[in-house]
Amino acid sequence: MNTEQKIILPSNSIFTTEEVLQFRNDTLGCKNVIHLNNAGAGLMPDIVTQAQLDHIQLEAEIGGYEASALRVDVISAFYNQAALLFNCKPSNIAFTASATDSYTRALSSIPFTQGDIILTDHDDFVSNQIQFMSLRKRLGIEIIHIKNAAVGGVNLNDLEEKLKKYRPKLLAITHIPTNSGLVQPVEQIAQIYASYSQKYPDNTWYILDACQSVGQMKLDVQQLKCDFLSVTNRKFLRGPRGTGALYISDRALDAGLEPLFIDMRGAIWTEKDTYQQQPDSKRYEDWEFAYSTVIGTKVAIEYCRKVGEDKIEQQVKLLSGILRTKLAVTNKIRVLDTGPELGGLVTFTVEDSDPLSIVNGLLKRKINVVPSYRAFGLIDFDEKGVQWAVRASPHYYNTMDEMETFVESVKEIIGA
Amino acid sequence: MNTEQKIILPSNSIFTTEEVLQFRNDTLGCKNVIHLNNAGAGLMPDIVTQAQLDHIQLEAEIGGYEASALRVDVISAFYNQAALLFNCKPSNIAFTASATDSYTRALSSIPFTQGDIILTDHDDFVSNQIQFMSLRKRLGIEIIHIKNAAVGGVNLNDLEEKLKKYRPKLLAITHIPTNSGLVQPVEQIAQIYASYSQKYPDNTWYILDACQSVGQMKLDVQQLKCDFLSVTNRKFLRGPRGTGALYISDRALDAGLEPLFIDMRGAIWTEKDTYQQQPDSKRYEDWEFAYSTVIGTKVAIEYCRKVGEDKIEQQVKLLSGILRTKLAVTNKIRVLDTGPELGGLVTFTVEDSDPLSIVNGLLKRKINVVPSYRAFGLIDFDEKGVQWAVRASPHYYNTMDEMETFVESVKEIIGA
Repeated sequence: MNTEQKIILPSNSIFTTEEVLQFRNDTLGCKNVIHLNNAGAGLMPDIVTQAQLDHIQLEAEIGGYEASALRVDVISAFYNQAALLFNCKPSNIAFTASATDSYTRALSSIPFTQGDIILTDHDDFVSNQIQFMSLRKRLGIEIIHIKNAAVGGVNLNDLEEKLKKYRPKLLAITHIPTNSGLVQPVEQIAQIYASYSQKYPDNTWYILDACQSVGQMKLDVQQLKCDFLSVTNRKFLRGPRGTGALYISDRALDAGLEPLFIDMRGAIWTEKDTYQQQPDSKRYEDWEFAYSTVIGTKVAIEYCRKVGEDKIEQQVKLLSGILRTKLAVTNKIRVLDTGPELGGLVTFTVEDSDPLSIVNGLLKRKINVVPSYRAFGLIDFDEKGVQWAVRASPHYYNTMDEMETFVESVKEIIGA
Repeated sequence: MNTEQKIILPSNSIFTTEEVLQFRNDTLGCKNVIHLNNAGAGLMPDIVTQAQLDHIQLEAEIGGYEASALRVDVISAFYNQAALLFNCKPSNIAFTASATDSYTRALSSIPFTQGDIILTDHDDFVSNQIQFMSLRKRLGIEIIHIKNAAVGGVNLNDLEEKLKKYRPKLLAITHIPTNSGLVQPVEQIAQIYASYSQKYPDNTWYILDACQSVGQMKLDVQQLKCDFLSVTNRKFLRGPRGTGALYISDRALDAGLEPLFIDMRGAIWTEKDTYQQQPDSKRYEDWEFAYSTVIGTKVAIEYCRKVGEDKIEQQVKLLSGILRTKLAVTNKIRVLDTGPELGGLVTFTVEDSDPLSIVNGLLKRKINVVPSYRAFGLIDFDEKGVQWAVRASPHYYNTMDEMETFVESVKEIIGA
């Protein structure tokens, strides 16, 4: 399947045919598959692949430590690029192994004590929810959920009321959940949280899980007003697997927060019984990295910023909107996405079918999507009354004809 | 520098010239550098490099999730190989991002409460010590150090007495410290701990940090009698950077221990307010990995086991012993390694010199070693009365002529 030379784009496409052809030409995977699993892991641009291969080769040639020492400038450029991506300073950025790794470092740095409250939403990421329950079991914290609005997403009035009523130690929001098209109204959440935290500045923190939104839309921490922003690099950012990043606000750093399991990069052992934390975001990092993936991430961010996050957001919304419309008018299919704003994750169920037969049927046709299950977003699935969904997540390198081929293939498989 | 065809081995070499030539022929880096930084990161065998490159290439071709799904058998083989390496079951093995990552997952799974005691040694790894202090600050635990024997390493009588006196929640030992030749007497420690824990089975755990010993010698958890064994794969095991493994005993799994920040791989979200932990070591893993590094690690373990851990241990001890002898008779040099048994890490200081000029001088001659500082092993450095050391760590692919070139080069640089 070579889609390089002939592609069809939506009539109101943000990118020109020449631009999309270039994106596809930059991406080996586009020649082989219709990739609608960008919410799993995006197809890497070839320069991201090559950056990793080159560094691993260098490690083989001269040694692992010696290779990272030689390329210290490129590694350092990761922090500059991530700072540009999030509109902060390099000293607010930590490199991690995944969004979950970012998240737990942040979470571990908040000195919870018995009775402290985490205020969270109905569509928060499964692993975060499990970790809150683990903290409840171990430390006796409480978990309170903000109500959903009728249209889906956080009920902003309820957020405001619950902040005042419960004075949570932590507000925990997932920007885009892993299993629905919902985009939380993070600008309004930021306003409400900022005005609350001005009143009670000393004992409240805000973490935003942006695992699914990074690379799909602009993330400006000055606007988002969060203390922690956790992201993964393999999804819409199109970076390497096994990588993540964490933004830590100056407010959190200045307050002396530090991960519970701070290591020799995050702190200096000063005397037998004392250590000194690093002044900046290094405090949140471990000593060891797969540096090929740090360098790959740096290249992925550069590529993303060159394409332009605002344009990417518009194109992804356009393609996923078309996908939802086409699926919604298909027999047997129920599109599940609800919310005040919808992003690049398209989820649907099919009457009298099962997710694996659909996903595997598509895989045989070289179309990549994934199944999603109740345990991945339990509250949301229960509210929708479904046990599973198929998740299709297009990106800006996908085309209109790929959307059509996908929908026709689903129809064939489910007999609609 | 091509050392492939002409090498000299010690007269009592465990491996034949043909074998060492084969090891070196299997290893691109041996053609370029004299690598005495195996305690930092070992040179990868070419098949380990290639395994990573191939998988990253596959990810680029068909997608990241699709690539790991396609290679699930190879990924699963990592657990089998690690189980063979440690003499346990695959269900006792977790893959992690580093030894520190392994360590903190284990440490976080012990439900410490105020007044609980961690019993540790004078040569324990810096990051572990910092984490104990962090736990003390946050949870009010206590840290007790076992005395050293006159010869160096754990004083076994003192260990026995302190176990009985303090009834620690955790015994934490580092097998081989990061900055000295010491090998702790782990077999005797195992005997003493086992007989203690039989008396007080319900409330005591033993973690062994084997970061520097894995790949350098046989690690048999049945003999070591630890509940947790944390390792890194990039050092003497010659695997990829950014990887580690954790062994968790059945006793710990059966007792229901789980990491504080357990995620969606480690547990299933069952109802809004409940989750269920996995029955096996998956409980200690996160959802996301750089699978190229899992596969690379699997190949590295296979290679190590084929060469043979017992033979590797003998050859490494032989070469490092020769190195110590040659350095010890050199003017200005003080070899720092003490202990009942010495392994592959050779450390020394030099009168009226500084570590960076030595390390950089060697690097110019394509010889890889690293500096080590007081903050990396504070108690040990203070006991020895030094501020820094140079660390040289040979492996079984190194040769006698490389040892000689190294020592001659040091002499040149320091003017001895």
